[in-house]
Amino acid sequence: MHTALCDLLGIEHPIVGFSPSERVVAAISRAGGFGVLGCVRFNDADELDAVLSWLDTETGGRPYGVDVVMPTHGPAEGKHVDLDKLIPDGHRDFVQRTLLKLGVPPLPDGESTGDGVLGWLHSIARSHVEVALSHPVRLIANALGPPPPDVIDAAHERGLLVAALAGRATHARSHVASGVDIVVAQGYEAGGHTGEIASMVLVPEVVDAVGEGVPVLAAGGIGSGRQIAAALALGATGVWMGSAWLGTEEYQAQPALRQALLDATSADTVRSRVYSGKPARLLRNRWTEAWSEPEAPAPLPMPLQNLLVSEAHNRLMRAGDPTVVPMPVGQIVGRMNEVRPVADVMTALVAEATETLKRLSAL
Amino acid sequence: MHTALCDLLGIEHPIVGFSPSERVVAAISRAGGFGVLGCVRFNDADELDAVLSWLDTETGGRPYGVDVVMPTHGPAEGKHVDLDKLIPDGHRDFVQRTLLKLGVPPLPDGESTGDGVLGWLHSIARSHVEVALSHPVRLIANALGPPPPDVIDAAHERGLLVAALAGRATHARSHVASGVDIVVAQGYEAGGHTGEIASMVLVPEVVDAVGEGVPVLAAGGIGSGRQIAAALALGATGVWMGSAWLGTEEYQAQPALRQALLDATSADTVRSRVYSGKPARLLRNRWTEAWSEPEAPAPLPMPLQNLLVSEAHNRLMRAGDPTVVPMPVGQIVGRMNEVRPVADVMTALVAEATETLKRLSAL
Repeated sequence: MHTALCDLLGIEHPIVGFSPSERVVAAISRAGGFGVLGCVRFNDADELDAVLSWLDTETGGRPYGVDVVMPTHGPAEGKHVDLDKLIPDGHRDFVQRTLLKLGVPPLPDGESTGDGVLGWLHSIARSHVEVALSHPVRLIANALGPPPPDVIDAAHERGLLVAALAGRATHARSHVASGVDIVVAQGYEAGGHTGEIASMVLVPEVVDAVGEGVPVLAAGGIGSGRQIAAALALGATGVWMGSAWLGTEEYQAQPALRQALLDATSADTVRSRVYSGKPARLLRNRWTEAWSEPEAPAPLPMPLQNLLVSEAHNRLMRAGDPTVVPMPVGQIVGRMNEVRPVADVMTALVAEATETLKRLSAL
Repeated sequence: MHTALCDLLGIEHPIVGFSPSERVVAAISRAGGFGVLGCVRFNDADELDAVLSWLDTETGGRPYGVDVVMPTHGPAEGKHVDLDKLIPDGHRDFVQRTLLKLGVPPLPDGESTGDGVLGWLHSIARSHVEVALSHPVRLIANALGPPPPDVIDAAHERGLLVAALAGRATHARSHVASGVDIVVAQGYEAGGHTGEIASMVLVPEVVDAVGEGVPVLAAGGIGSGRQIAAALALGATGVWMGSAWLGTEEYQAQPALRQALLDATSADTVRSRVYSGKPARLLRNRWTEAWSEPEAPAPLPMPLQNLLVSEAHNRLMRAGDPTVVPMPVGQIVGRMNEVRPVADVMTALVAEATETLKRLSAL
């Protein structure tokens, strides 16, 4: 299974794997795919720098990329303390009441509640880009559309490729007009921030919209070799997978999260604004359901919602209760039934995709 | 492109086409696919009988099927007049206010407002089955799960195949346990009644759930040959297409509907309960948006909602305004950009699917 993407990125299999875990990213690249590190969790650029240095070694010279979250419209700025003032008390009260109702314990004494995820802020995302440009990174992807023109220019000057996620064909077309090299067509069934058009419909629309010269990766609903073959049938030159790696050994999920992922069926996710303020697909559980109750307030816009629930996320994750973990994941979570090393997942993906292509050629 | 479905149904292409229009159904079967007539619109069984007699001739001996809407749980019964009493006045007022606000004219003097769609009633659906069994129908499909056991038995005794739609793998498994021969895995992106799991995820789940012996058709998001090839990659033995035929000459859409279909992008649909009381994907327009306003009541359960909006549907359809037509349609409506004969659509589907399989075999 060799496509133009393999030549473009210098990889063996047309499989791009996104993960916030550097261990997963390194293992994906070592296994012949292309690992992409999610940077949004790094509030401190120095920490990202250290992780990329680790990756430079651990990928063993294989190419890898980074993913930043840089909103194209209305970059939200201001110090943390200023943003805090924009959060209504009623929202804070609801979060505290809900945690109490769900039986979620407070953090241990002396533990910081954390700063929340600041990677959504334009200034922080820019610091991620700067750090990435000082490492042998092959690709910068932006989760929220095309990065600003100067970022695209800086990446191109250093020979990097720029990718951007798109949930509509019109967005894909404007990404390419902005200088984006690779479009990731992300369907409704994907984990995390996602639109309403399903991959089956979106992928060929995007492929036709951007034209033959622009590689399109299919994201959303890809967790098996059959789904990779289907993505290639739809005209994608490769796939972008995120959720599938949450079930790997390298991801090192806490026991409650691991249990929640293994338990969930494809019907146990929900697309909601409670995680970040923008619609994102999450595990559906007692925490997300609480936000659907009649007395629940509407989630705040990005980046306020994530600041609001930042301490709650911390507490929910540490509660040791699989029914409350706050976790972005796609509908393929239903197929996550065992924990395996990344290399085994990759081998199985390639084998099933190859077998599927063979089966199809007999028709 | 030959699959086991072709042998099972005695057809040339593994393409099943659903339509409420007998002209479309006949043209699909004549073009080498398998036409399935939607029966829900026939309040009078004699009218269905006449239409099936027409089909017996016009399909020229090619096989065809029928689709009934028989809820598995809690068949709603009672005379029309009894059901009417269950509709709250507030809902009736909202409908009248909304029609006024949207500028929808009343029906011409002396025109009946119609009885609404009664095909959702168990007794009416049963009369459809009885009529179908007296014609050389090859397949009975049920849109809402497996038909009652005696209907399945009666169909099997006469050598008919029974198909049922499923939006979850668990449902598919229980359909097969009930004696269903063919499962139609219908994804979120489909038009009409549909679930939340997208085709990319649902189809392989259903294929694995029912096992090798049971043919699975992929429905939802199928409107081109690439999508057919993708469905086969996912393990389906054929496709079930509905929306695609709305853009054909044979469908004879009124000008306002035709314009609405041509104008809509894949982002212009919505999954809502306003049409029938169960979640169904519809054209998103001023009518569906009105039901999302804060002052709008929650839609009533099936079959009351359709009775409530029956006169409104009639008026909205005759208003000659593309921005209010009440129409179930899938996300592939975005690709409906010209009106063609069914035979041309079929030729293009088969050509693109074949070309896609050829392209994939080169990978």
